[in-house]
Amino acid sequence: MTAPLDFYFDFSSPYGYLASEQIDELAAKHGRSVAWRPILLGVVFQQTGGQPLLNIPLKGGYARHDLARSARLLDLPFKLPDPFPFMSVAACRAFYWLQDDDPAGAVALAKALYREAFGRGGRIDSNEAVVAAAAAAGVDGGELAAALNDPAVKQQLRDEISLAISKGVFGSPLIVVDGEPFWGHDRLDQVDLWLQRGGW
Amino acid sequence: MTAPLDFYFDFSSPYGYLASEQIDELAAKHGRSVAWRPILLGVVFQQTGGQPLLNIPLKGGYARHDLARSARLLDLPFKLPDPFPFMSVAACRAFYWLQDDDPAGAVALAKALYREAFGRGGRIDSNEAVVAAAAAAGVDGGELAAALNDPAVKQQLRDEISLAISKGVFGSPLIVVDGEPFWGHDRLDQVDLWLQRGGW
Repeated sequence: MTAPLDFYFDFSSPYGYLASEQIDELAAKHGRSVAWRPILLGVVFQQTGGQPLLNIPLKGGYARHDLARSARLLDLPFKLPDPFPFMSVAACRAFYWLQDDDPAGAVALAKALYREAFGRGGRIDSNEAVVAAAAAAGVDGGELAAALNDPAVKQQLRDEISLAISKGVFGSPLIVVDGEPFWGHDRLDQVDLWLQRGGW
Repeated sequence: MTAPLDFYFDFSSPYGYLASEQIDELAAKHGRSVAWRPILLGVVFQQTGGQPLLNIPLKGGYARHDLARSARLLDLPFKLPDPFPFMSVAACRAFYWLQDDDPAGAVALAKALYREAFGRGGRIDSNEAVVAAAAAAGVDGGELAAALNDPAVKQQLRDEISLAISKGVFGSPLIVVDGEPFWGHDRLDQVDLWLQRGGW
């Protein structure tokens, strides 16, 4: 099999950030590529009744601890932005807009946005913040600013999220390997094994 | 450090079952023992607003798939009992009652109960079912049947759960290593590393 892995994530998901720093390398090790598919978990949660992990009593406190500990283990910088969670719709739109013309650039932008948000604790929760972060990553700020208000770009994001929900996506990160879903940064080891063995 | 690991779990937690088949061996590899501490997640959820994972739309379906897949990877038998989730209060009481006189026997009983529930899909959700499973594991059924209705045994369980909540326990399985909490079967790899490195 040589189909790309589907990598679903929300730009507001800190475990998604950790996965974003590993997924390309993991896939490449097995001769695979990755289809990056940002979504908005808020839209998904309207259907599943879920809520952001860090808002849940006790679990939220644990998750903050676990995130920092996991980042240290991976030798990745980690800082939660304030406010958190935040609106990630502008980041999503920027990604899909850029992807049409420059797929590799869109992935580079996604990584840059994630590093701004969770590597440095910066803000990517408005059109202005996303344009600034994108410009720093080499994207034309004027074109992007216009695109973020383009109804066609907005509709594309809605369609991508509907498609993801129809495929059963309910969390972030969620990786699909040849139809097999793996949810959570802590399942990357099983993704690795699945690719190596072709299932079990 | 040579303090035992604290292993918190609910007998109704299928991921706790998977962990129960690995935790003793994992600890022994690092010269450690394990303090088995069954709890009732239902009591915890009254404070945290949580709910059984398998009842959540989409996530529940995924979790059933993930459980079966993880069990296959570990070469463990796995079958969800019906009904599920189930009342695990009798199993908890049996454990703490036996532990006072026979700590090793209590751990053996815990493993036997977990295997009955999730290895064979059997029932351990009533006093009668727990007495039967315990008798098969060599425990005196008559004494246990009496103990399950003993107010002192009931109070002991309430105290153990209060203690666990006061220590921040909110899920199953949850392992505490030298004050460091790790939640989830999928964090056993970090428990292993933490024991090996003494933290990071």
